[in-house]
Amino acid sequence: MLRTANISELRKIIKEEKQRGKTIVLVPSMGYLHRGHLTLIEKAKETGAFVVVSIFVNPLQFGPNEDYARYPRDLERDAQLVEECGVDLLFHPSVEEMYPRPMVTFVEVGQLDKVLCGANRPGHFRGVTTVVSKLFHIVQPDIAFFGQKDYQQYLIIRRMVSDLNLPIEVRGVPIVREKDGLALSSRNVFLSAEQRQEALVLSRSLQEAAELIRRGKQSARDIEDFIRTAIRRDSQGVIDYVEVRDAEDLSEVTEINRQVLIALAVKFGPTRLIDNIVVEVETNV
Amino acid sequence: MLRTANISELRKIIKEEKQRGKTIVLVPSMGYLHRGHLTLIEKAKETGAFVVVSIFVNPLQFGPNEDYARYPRDLERDAQLVEECGVDLLFHPSVEEMYPRPMVTFVEVGQLDKVLCGANRPGHFRGVTTVVSKLFHIVQPDIAFFGQKDYQQYLIIRRMVSDLNLPIEVRGVPIVREKDGLALSSRNVFLSAEQRQEALVLSRSLQEAAELIRRGKQSARDIEDFIRTAIRRDSQGVIDYVEVRDAEDLSEVTEINRQVLIALAVKFGPTRLIDNIVVEVETNV
Repeated sequence: MLRTANISELRKIIKEEKQRGKTIVLVPSMGYLHRGHLTLIEKAKETGAFVVVSIFVNPLQFGPNEDYARYPRDLERDAQLVEECGVDLLFHPSVEEMYPRPMVTFVEVGQLDKVLCGANRPGHFRGVTTVVSKLFHIVQPDIAFFGQKDYQQYLIIRRMVSDLNLPIEVRGVPIVREKDGLALSSRNVFLSAEQRQEALVLSRSLQEAAELIRRGKQSARDIEDFIRTAIRRDSQGVIDYVEVRDAEDLSEVTEINRQVLIALAVKFGPTRLIDNIVVEVETNV
Repeated sequence: MLRTANISELRKIIKEEKQRGKTIVLVPSMGYLHRGHLTLIEKAKETGAFVVVSIFVNPLQFGPNEDYARYPRDLERDAQLVEECGVDLLFHPSVEEMYPRPMVTFVEVGQLDKVLCGANRPGHFRGVTTVVSKLFHIVQPDIAFFGQKDYQQYLIIRRMVSDLNLPIEVRGVPIVREKDGLALSSRNVFLSAEQRQEALVLSRSLQEAAELIRRGKQSARDIEDFIRTAIRRDSQGVIDYVEVRDAEDLSEVTEINRQVLIALAVKFGPTRLIDNIVVEVETNV
């Protein structure tokens, strides 16, 4: 496996692979890889392309009171993992390499970035779209893989690519879960044993809510209340949001008569977890 | 010469040229080409590359009370001109091709876009950087040429390319002028004979101001006053701005002790003209 922290060196490698006619696939990440990331990488490998994994904890997407400093990092462990997965190139730039001088240019996806995680994390998605567009320009992949645990991020990246005509196909990969249902996240390491147990209410209530919808429940507000009640009953988690939204454009939904996303963010102590489920609705129109 | 209004068709052509090992050069324009544009195209041709000229009057960079509707257009005349220049590919997309649905994604270069033309044309540079980044993603040029009559635009594009790691070299080409000094502009056709004559005060006063600086004048405010006085004395032009700024980052300048840009915008009737000069200062430090 090749590895570099240097943009010019990466560009040279990519150029050579493209000249050989290789398709380039990018899996962007913030590292501290778990089985969710490894699933993304597996999907990337299945394309038969030249697979690049980037590891960069992007300061631009963390708010001043968020967990940038304590976000877990372990580059050598990550490097070993991706090498075992057969990744071709690991790109792990420093903050100075990515931001050699103060940034004044930003890429912003309006509307989609104002709701859900965007409402309580101002500037977060602007940081994400800006760094992802930098990574896209640096790596110039043909295909990029994103996990759907960050469903809103996945939709925002898709919209950015479409609006700005980026020559890249964005593929989403479903959430990977522990056997007991907990969505994999690098932040799960911060949970105490008790919080870890309580956090199961998230995936459980999402599943139950999806089942209610499939059985004909149509009120989005009722579904949200059902989940909120379950979380408050079964855990000490502090709800950031629980929302039913259109699964394509995140617009508000009152009556559930199309594909919807149920998304939530809940804090367990200082650790903020997110989870979601997309529910197909049979329409009998 | 090839020509297309279609993004997929353009991409196919570019891909083939890249596979042949050709360098791609882009000259973006809003059409109604004059000798200024043709100079850009000549410079592009001198590279020996595959030269793409785009013609697109971008609604996104015009304010609601600006001259989008009446901006001059003549595609067939332009097509003939660029063919005579030996351009390889003319790209002239429709508004629907460039904006098939409402845009929610924007690229914004902060700071640099707030001053000079940005101060009185809110959203103008955001429209420029967004459409240029789209054109860059569509054409994927190795080199792009921009005229320095829009000096601020040139600096903003350079900064966008650098901040977002676009793999493109931006080259600026000096202002092309009529024999009597008037900077070439597609908007000059709107000037009456009298306005056309009066507008000469712009280039003349810029030249005289540059000469004052070369002879040792150091006060930026005095230089601005000198130009403003000349414009008010010799024309009916209504001054939008006359400013001396740092030629690299457009920051404010009080004492002229480094390379400066003197830039101005003046309205003659409904027609807004811009002009500028970059003045090198010998530093004896």
